[in-house]
Amino acid sequence: MQHKKVRFHNSHVDYYFDSSARKLKQLADPRLSVILTDENVFAAHPKIFANWNTIVLKAGEQFKVQDTVDAVIEQMLEMGVDRQYTLVGVGGGVITDIAGYTAGIYKRGIRCGFVPSTLLALVDASIGGKNGVDVGAYKNMVGLIRQPAFILHDLSLLNSLPEAEWVNGFAEIIKHACIKDAGMFRQLEEKSTSSYRKQRKLLAALVQKNVMLKNRVVQKDEFETGERRHLNFGHTLGHALENQYELSHGQAISIGMTFASILSGQLSNFKNADRVVGLLENYGLPTFAQFDREKAMQVLSKDKKKENDTIHFVLLERIGKAVTKPVSIDHLSKALS
Amino acid sequence: MQHKKVRFHNSHVDYYFDSSARKLKQLADPRLSVILTDENVFAAHPKIFANWNTIVLKAGEQFKVQDTVDAVIEQMLEMGVDRQYTLVGVGGGVITDIAGYTAGIYKRGIRCGFVPSTLLALVDASIGGKNGVDVGAYKNMVGLIRQPAFILHDLSLLNSLPEAEWVNGFAEIIKHACIKDAGMFRQLEEKSTSSYRKQRKLLAALVQKNVMLKNRVVQKDEFETGERRHLNFGHTLGHALENQYELSHGQAISIGMTFASILSGQLSNFKNADRVVGLLENYGLPTFAQFDREKAMQVLSKDKKKENDTIHFVLLERIGKAVTKPVSIDHLSKALS
Repeated sequence: MQHKKVRFHNSHVDYYFDSSARKLKQLADPRLSVILTDENVFAAHPKIFANWNTIVLKAGEQFKVQDTVDAVIEQMLEMGVDRQYTLVGVGGGVITDIAGYTAGIYKRGIRCGFVPSTLLALVDASIGGKNGVDVGAYKNMVGLIRQPAFILHDLSLLNSLPEAEWVNGFAEIIKHACIKDAGMFRQLEEKSTSSYRKQRKLLAALVQKNVMLKNRVVQKDEFETGERRHLNFGHTLGHALENQYELSHGQAISIGMTFASILSGQLSNFKNADRVVGLLENYGLPTFAQFDREKAMQVLSKDKKKENDTIHFVLLERIGKAVTKPVSIDHLSKALS
Repeated sequence: MQHKKVRFHNSHVDYYFDSSARKLKQLADPRLSVILTDENVFAAHPKIFANWNTIVLKAGEQFKVQDTVDAVIEQMLEMGVDRQYTLVGVGGGVITDIAGYTAGIYKRGIRCGFVPSTLLALVDASIGGKNGVDVGAYKNMVGLIRQPAFILHDLSLLNSLPEAEWVNGFAEIIKHACIKDAGMFRQLEEKSTSSYRKQRKLLAALVQKNVMLKNRVVQKDEFETGERRHLNFGHTLGHALENQYELSHGQAISIGMTFASILSGQLSNFKNADRVVGLLENYGLPTFAQFDREKAMQVLSKDKKKENDTIHFVLLERIGKAVTKPVSIDHLSKALS
């Protein structure tokens, strides 16, 4: 176990790397806490929840909506939850997003913490304070930027993770390597999913490296006016596709990263689109795909990062070095065809 | 017109006292703004809304709920509102609460401003950054503490204000006098509602004094861990009554202030409950009232400021000097009988 305190603009987050869910009771008082989880995590790890007030949600992104938040808030009111309570999200990104958002608005804000249960949540979704819910086909249209008080890692939770969820997590890890860390990109090229799954120390080091990489970006730009946008590499098109098709988040952003890499060749002189595509494929991710261009453009034009008729698109200059460039909706539409 | 910049922890608010709604276009770009208002304000002051994107809500506290916020967000998405937009609430406290909350969560936060149209909103509801919606019988159970970018005053909007709304506003003005300003208390004892309605300068001075008084309290304790609680004088019981009966906010907190003044006699040696009751009655407010004690206690015990079985109750030591004391639910229950 390693403890790191990561400081943000108005707050800090206590990270407990490679630790155990048993430590949770040292971070939050079970009598003054509510755990939010989903039925899959609850069924796979029943011991975690013994002696805690627990609200169990249906699993899936389709439940990451305001109605779910409303129902959670009503249950918390019924339980008599006051401002001294901590809300703990134990689960993947959907759960940490709902828990962070609900804690931010319940009685105008209560303490919250996360125990991420997926690789994606460990290396990305739980980090940086962004939370919220989807509205119709539009992802994360409502939410807050608010840091949790703590994030507790227990890698043994990954033992119940289906194969597809590993692939999902590696999509964000590859994204981090693309935008910030050529050394990690090379390590990923040398290894494979199974090397990380078999060697716990190698995995723990990879997770911690990704957490600190993302935190460094967020620390420089917590409220997303500049560098934090780099984390959206592959996400602009990715989000447009994700809710339209039966794609996981990782699959959608993998296609998005492929598109952004090729666009980078046209607009920022990037030479290594083939290496990005190759790495994504090695980790079981889709790269080129048929999709409805018109529908994708429709969703892109509602992107929350859009300013007038231009999207700030994240491109690569080289492996490990991202830039943001304004790209017109017109240009995107042509590039997509 | 007087401009004052009021600084808070992470932000500041630009106040424009005794100004005009015509100034709004200098504070927000009409092409990149949405005004939120209610049908009463929209009908009474149509000129304000010409050339602005406007969303008009039904009037009334019963619409201060998440469903309304959801509908506003859907309309903003349809309008293509992006992060460069400003959301302006033109109306009473319900509108400024909904506008502030919606701006805080829409795309994780956009700029917002207020043009308060009632005395209550001018001297209280629009100030201090608290916003949110009700959940069932529980007031303001969900929301944020987030300051608007600007607050623009136009006292001519009060010309369309019904009598009951003047009374409502004076309840909060009397509260401010009780907890912080014995001089203002004496001025209020000498004057009456009609003196302020007839003399615009006297009213403008009273409004500005109340705004700055509340802001000083909020500046010291933006996130309500101490002194800001004094602003809840009369509100603990008031909120419990407000949604239970056909009472306005002002009427409910007037009964709450009466109860708190008498409780102050028992618990903090307060000698002037009769003066508080007299002043409230002079301004047309109810003081003693029959109500369902059991129901009130049920709602009190869900109060969001409750910690375990104690409520931090705001009491008076003397006119102009409030204190917060923990009072057990048991004691309150006895005092109410």
